[in-house]
Amino acid sequence: MKINANFLQLQEKYLFTTITKKVNEYKAAHPDKDVIRLGIGDVTLPLAPVVIDALRNATEEMGREKTFRGYGDEQGYLFLREAVCGYYAQKDVALDDGEVFISDGANSDLGNILDLFDADNTVLIPDPVYPVYVDANTMAGHKIMYMNGNAANGFLPLPDQPTDIIYLCSPNNPTGAVYSRAQLQQWVDFANAQDAVIIFDAAYESFVQEADLPTSIYQIPGAKECAIEISSLSKTAGFTGTRCGYTVVPHALKRGGASLNAMWFRRQTTKYNGASYIIQRGAEAVFTPEGMAQSRKNIAYYMENAKTISDTLNTLGIWHTGGKNAPYIWLQCPNNTPSWDFFDQLLHEANIVGAPGVGFGTNGEGFFRLSAFASHENVRAAMARLRLI
Amino acid sequence: MKINANFLQLQEKYLFTTITKKVNEYKAAHPDKDVIRLGIGDVTLPLAPVVIDALRNATEEMGREKTFRGYGDEQGYLFLREAVCGYYAQKDVALDDGEVFISDGANSDLGNILDLFDADNTVLIPDPVYPVYVDANTMAGHKIMYMNGNAANGFLPLPDQPTDIIYLCSPNNPTGAVYSRAQLQQWVDFANAQDAVIIFDAAYESFVQEADLPTSIYQIPGAKECAIEISSLSKTAGFTGTRCGYTVVPHALKRGGASLNAMWFRRQTTKYNGASYIIQRGAEAVFTPEGMAQSRKNIAYYMENAKTISDTLNTLGIWHTGGKNAPYIWLQCPNNTPSWDFFDQLLHEANIVGAPGVGFGTNGEGFFRLSAFASHENVRAAMARLRLI
Repeated sequence: MKINANFLQLQEKYLFTTITKKVNEYKAAHPDKDVIRLGIGDVTLPLAPVVIDALRNATEEMGREKTFRGYGDEQGYLFLREAVCGYYAQKDVALDDGEVFISDGANSDLGNILDLFDADNTVLIPDPVYPVYVDANTMAGHKIMYMNGNAANGFLPLPDQPTDIIYLCSPNNPTGAVYSRAQLQQWVDFANAQDAVIIFDAAYESFVQEADLPTSIYQIPGAKECAIEISSLSKTAGFTGTRCGYTVVPHALKRGGASLNAMWFRRQTTKYNGASYIIQRGAEAVFTPEGMAQSRKNIAYYMENAKTISDTLNTLGIWHTGGKNAPYIWLQCPNNTPSWDFFDQLLHEANIVGAPGVGFGTNGEGFFRLSAFASHENVRAAMARLRLI
Repeated sequence: MKINANFLQLQEKYLFTTITKKVNEYKAAHPDKDVIRLGIGDVTLPLAPVVIDALRNATEEMGREKTFRGYGDEQGYLFLREAVCGYYAQKDVALDDGEVFISDGANSDLGNILDLFDADNTVLIPDPVYPVYVDANTMAGHKIMYMNGNAANGFLPLPDQPTDIIYLCSPNNPTGAVYSRAQLQQWVDFANAQDAVIIFDAAYESFVQEADLPTSIYQIPGAKECAIEISSLSKTAGFTGTRCGYTVVPHALKRGGASLNAMWFRRQTTKYNGASYIIQRGAEAVFTPEGMAQSRKNIAYYMENAKTISDTLNTLGIWHTGGKNAPYIWLQCPNNTPSWDFFDQLLHEANIVGAPGVGFGTNGEGFFRLSAFASHENVRAAMARLRLI
């Protein structure tokens, strides 16, 4: 019996564990303090009324013999895959429903997709970025190479070295930076020239406000020949606890003579049995005109927080990016303070919880992420405190 | 870019596809015929009232700001892990809640668990068995060895060759056979002696009627040192479309100096974000006294079907096993008819759909699976027709 020795190469998963530990210690020592959490990227507004209605109706269906549903369609219910295709059509992207796979959220597929590739591949991952890419690729035994995000390139690195697999996240977590069409075209052309595959994490696409910025990699010519897009309703519609997402694997995407769509179909129908019928009905409701309007209202609420934070940082002369087309503000810690020291300072002096940039990669040292997922009251209170330190 | 070439070794997934194709062709040619489906192992009774209530309440919670839930506990909500521990306590198995991982059903974990092991391992799989084990291990690049189930050993093969990983399914799909405590003890002792790991599929445990038969491998001394148990509410409580299950990885299970519990925790918190809060509340209700009573009532309903089928086969002098502690009846096709020929005969002459035994492995040739998941009326009608052919 040989265990997967790649697990021994994993770095300790310390970021959110350490944040939680430090916050709990502080609260235990100062039980009277009102700590405001802008650290973890979790939504706070309840599900939209139209989604609740759909979940309610589907629940009732499951309780009656005539409308009860057992095993669902293998790739996800057609009603939901068609709704996703309709959403893409609004982005001027034509998809076949056979190219859409319903998931329980982006996280599973961002890791599981690696089942399609040999262990002997190189992967290019931005630094800083959402830590799961690094961990999943470490487990898979891939050789990981990093591309440097920094203030000079706006945390939007471009192709600079050969690779087999590329992870892109736009709008980016944690920096909030968004690739332009021209920049994504560089990535698509590079991937096609190299026979590489792009794993495009579009979980924050619904936060893009500027009309000329891409919200899907398939808006870029050539992308269907090289990219898998993984998205989610977690942030679009507050589904972090409800769990539903979708992954697009185009029919045109072939590598080593094989259709990645056919491989993913086989992988998912072997190692996954689909999202709950009830949840898929809730997800379908998100894509109705009413559902889109209610979800956009919540996003606008969060984006108002992002503006409040950004305005305050401008007043204080603190360099930052993001917050315009993403729910994250990425700031440079004042006075060259290291990320964790600034975390401690914010927690102790202003009772604000944020996320130290170094937790997202070595290039994140000296930076800090604030999340817009909170109430207006809390964000305003936090910013008032920030002005005082 | 190298794709995972193990996918090229997969056999075509033809069993249920071919069944569906043949049934659709027959129905198109004979639209007046009433075809009764005893083929696919999918439940037909609606969710229990107490589960519907819990789903309803959780849905309402998600629609209100004060009770809304975002990201859940990493291993699954503690309320559900404690409920699972309580269920095991009734089986005289003491589990720590840190040993229980909530899943979206058995299927995902039966495949994903292989992430913990090196590609260079051998795996022992019963023949016949649920086809997913073979496919998932093929994708993982494991050397697959088969153990022969046959009428002589009651389709309950015992250890006969060295291996690293062992898949056991008891009660068995498709044969309905259940290992005794003495037989499982042989497997546990064998695995511990070899440093092997048993993946124990307990998805049908709630159908066991005989009190002396084990319903968990942890009822066998030494099992916590060698076995992972994967179970589901799909058949226990009709969750095939609702999706929730649980996997137990004991703290005592170590291989290669590593804790498999710690590895699985890291795997799941990297590549999975948990089952929906709403669904976890529905699952919790299954384990309440009321939920258990309502679920057991549904199981008794299905087991009455199994008895109807078994009684008819006895009358007709057709050899069969299963149906006493499992929802499947595994019969020998009369007159040495090959499985698919018998399928065609049943479909054409009696308008009954079953599952050809050969679809579950080469040892299944000449056998046939009938499922008890149907209405009493349909099963009685099907058996009346069977008597006439």
